[in-house]
Amino acid sequence: MIIAARELFREQGYLGTSFRDVLAESSAPRGSVYFHFPGGKEELGTEVAIAHAAATVADINRAAARATSGAELVRLIILGAGNYLAKSGYRKGCAVTPIVVDVGSSSPALVEVVRRGFEDSISTLAARLVDKGIPGGRARRLAVSALAGMEGALIVARASRSTEAFESLAEDIAELAESAEAANSNHSPRLGRE
Amino acid sequence: MIIAARELFREQGYLGTSFRDVLAESSAPRGSVYFHFPGGKEELGTEVAIAHAAATVADINRAAARATSGAELVRLIILGAGNYLAKSGYRKGCAVTPIVVDVGSSSPALVEVVRRGFEDSISTLAARLVDKGIPGGRARRLAVSALAGMEGALIVARASRSTEAFESLAEDIAELAESAEAANSNHSPRLGRE
Repeated sequence: MIIAARELFREQGYLGTSFRDVLAESSAPRGSVYFHFPGGKEELGTEVAIAHAAATVADINRAAARATSGAELVRLIILGAGNYLAKSGYRKGCAVTPIVVDVGSSSPALVEVVRRGFEDSISTLAARLVDKGIPGGRARRLAVSALAGMEGALIVARASRSTEAFESLAEDIAELAESAEAANSNHSPRLGRE
Repeated sequence: MIIAARELFREQGYLGTSFRDVLAESSAPRGSVYFHFPGGKEELGTEVAIAHAAATVADINRAAARATSGAELVRLIILGAGNYLAKSGYRKGCAVTPIVVDVGSSSPALVEVVRRGFEDSISTLAARLVDKGIPGGRARRLAVSALAGMEGALIVARASRSTEAFESLAEDIAELAESAEAANSNHSPRLGRE
């Protein structure tokens, strides 16, 4: 049901997704809603946000294992998100953005779970950029810009049915990562210190 | 009613905003819904998207009149959006993101109006960056990254109740604008050609 809900949130938002839709998509029995989600929709949203954050962290680490530089890492992640959206026919956006947009002002506990997911994704990406030789403070800022940028690109690209926003951000963030890597290796060619 | 709806979309999304809410907020008479919006909610969304795009274009041109460089222009726009969000107690996000997120896959005509709004905002920002001496192709890419980044920062910052995402993006996009301005003035100190 969590997997089905995550896909439905991407496509029709949080308020636009009912338990009835989730049951139909997951072919779970009707009684399982009350059994598994006694806290109702907000509890389902919480589980989706936790699952989404774990998947995002895994995606970042998978890309980091392939990338040979910070610039390549941000390119892989950003362009990967764009490909995912395009392959879905520009239907499947971010699964947690709808939570912020629909109930950001009325469900603080749920939004706090989303915040922790963003924070974990940012920290993970920043740590992998540090591994690739970018100093800590610079890595954090790049990670924040890259992940905020991806969230926005998922909106702009969905409206325009074009991956231009992902390509622009991938180029631009990669350019910054390259500068940061070059500056760091100039300062300390072997130690990679900040 | 359009002004009231735009503010409500920011705070509680598109699906989360009913005509009843809009009437309460705008103190318009009940009959006016059917008179002014015979096309219902989708027509209201269309008017909000058009008004929002016009306001965004005006904001960009207002910032351009104050900024003395492309870097300052992107800083003013991005930090301005962050200040707006923070001043609202992190309640008022983008007014058109909810349209994409809630009905992006089911109301193509409405999403097309949002697409035109994004495109007008991007073209306007790109043109103002060209005015500040950044070559056309580079200006377009920066404008796309800046506006997609702002849309995403409005989500991340709302969840985290912090303006960090705006500050990161403002610094990063301004750094790119500075490089582009410097590269252009090196190539052609007086003509400002691409």
